[in-house]
Amino acid sequence: MANLIEKGTKIIGVGRNYIDNNPAPLPKEPVLFLKPTSSYLENGGTIEIPASMEQVWYEAELAVVIGKKARDVSEAEALDYVGGYALGLDVTAKELQATIKATGLPWLLAKGLDTFTPISEMIPKTAVPDPHDLELWLKVDGELKQKGSTQDMIFKIPYLISHISSFMTLLEGDVILTGTPEGIGPVKPGQKITAGITGLVDVNFSAERRSTPVSN
Amino acid sequence: MANLIEKGTKIIGVGRNYIDNNPAPLPKEPVLFLKPTSSYLENGGTIEIPASMEQVWYEAELAVVIGKKARDVSEAEALDYVGGYALGLDVTAKELQATIKATGLPWLLAKGLDTFTPISEMIPKTAVPDPHDLELWLKVDGELKQKGSTQDMIFKIPYLISHISSFMTLLEGDVILTGTPEGIGPVKPGQKITAGITGLVDVNFSAERRSTPVSN
Ligand SMILES: [Mg+2]
Ligand SMILES: [Mg+2]
Ligand SMILES: [Mg+2]
Repeated sequence: MANLIEKGTKIIGVGRNYIDNNPAPLPKEPVLFLKPTSSYLENGGTIEIPASMEQVWYEAELAVVIGKKARDVSEAEALDYVGGYALGLDVTAKELQATIKATGLPWLLAKGLDTFTPISEMIPKTAVPDPHDLELWLKVDGELKQKGSTQDMIFKIPYLISHISSFMTLLEGDVILTGTPEGIGPVKPGQKITAGITGLVDVNFSAERRSTPVSN
Repeated sequence: MANLIEKGTKIIGVGRNYIDNNPAPLPKEPVLFLKPTSSYLENGGTIEIPASMEQVWYEAELAVVIGKKARDVSEAEALDYVGGYALGLDVTAKELQATIKATGLPWLLAKGLDTFTPISEMIPKTAVPDPHDLELWLKVDGELKQKGSTQDMIFKIPYLISHISSFMTLLEGDVILTGTPEGIGPVKPGQKITAGITGLVDVNFSAERRSTPVSN
C-alpha cells in the first residue's frame, strides 16, 4: 500500500453515487459513512468472509487519497487537496446492511471488518488528468461484472471534498471511496476478484472463509 | 492528549450500555459505531456547534484506550490489551441522529464532526484497579447533570473488547467509548461543561457556535 494511504486515519464511504437504473429518486445529499483503516487489504490479499455471512458483496470504487489537511475547502480549490487516486473495493455484508438499514443501526459491522477494504497502490495525481473520465472494472473468476465510468458520478469529487470538509477535517492519507457503478454482487469463498482502473492500475484478491468464528 | 491516544486510528462508540429507566428492552448485542479521530478535542477546548444544529447533546463516557494490537481476544485475556482509561464525551447531534435512525442512514454526521469527542488525558491502567467501579460525572454551568457508576454497564469491558476484536483489529491507541449513564441533555453555545471520573481526572470544555457555516 502506498505510504500516503498508510498515514491515513479514516476512510469515508459514499453511498449510492452513480446514475443507474434504480427507480428510487437520486439522493439530494451524499450518504456518508466511515470504515476503519484496519479494514485495508493490500493487492494480492485474501478477503476473509466470516462463517456467519453468506452475502458479502464487492463494490469497485475510485478512491480519492487526500494529500494535505483540508477543512472548509471550497469546490474550486478542492482538487488541490488530492494527493492521488486508487482502486478500492467497498466490501459489504449485504444481509447485515439490510437489517441495519431497517433498524436504524450503525453500519460499522456491515462495512468495517478486517479485509473489507481491498485497495490498490496509490496513483499519483499527475497520472490522472481527469478523475471524472476513468473506467472502473471488476471481474469475478474472470467474468466481467462491473464496468462503469466515473463520468456517471452523481456527486463529483470537488463537491464531496468540500462537503465533507465542512463537517470534519480531512487529513493526509485519508481516503474517500466515491461509490460504485452498476453490477455489484456477491463474492464467495474460493473465488478470485480482479479489478482496475483501465490504463492505470489493476489488482487481484481472493476470497476465503475465515477460520476463526466471528461471535462469542 | 496522551501520546497513546494520538497514535490511535479509530474510536468505536457503544450505543445504550447502561441500565436505565427506559422501558425498551435491553439490547442483546452492543450497538457499535465509528467516530473519526479528527473529532478529538483536548481538555480546555471548545465544542463547535454548527449553525444548523440546535440539539447537540453531551454524553459522558468511560473511554478504554487500547494498549496493543488485539484480534480475536478472549474475554479472559481482554484487559491485558488495555493501555489505560480516559473520560470522553460522545457529543451527538440529536435531531440529526433521530432522522438518521428513522431513515437507516449512517451515523457519521451526527457523531463525527470536529470537536465532537472531547477527551481527557489518559489514565494509566495501573491507577484503575477496577474499571467497573468508577463514578462518572458531568456538570453544565456548574449544575450536576450526570452521575453514574460504571457498575451499571450492560456490556462489560472484557466482553466489548472480545466482541469487537472478533470483527476487526484493535490497534494501539484505538479508543472504545463505553456508553453513558442517565442524565444526557443539550449543551448550548456559551455554556461550560465540566466532567470527570471521581478521584482520577477532570476536564472542562466550553461550547460555542461555529462561525463557518456547515453546508455548501
Ligand atoms: Mg460502496
Ligand atoms: Mg478511523
Ligand atoms: Mg454515546
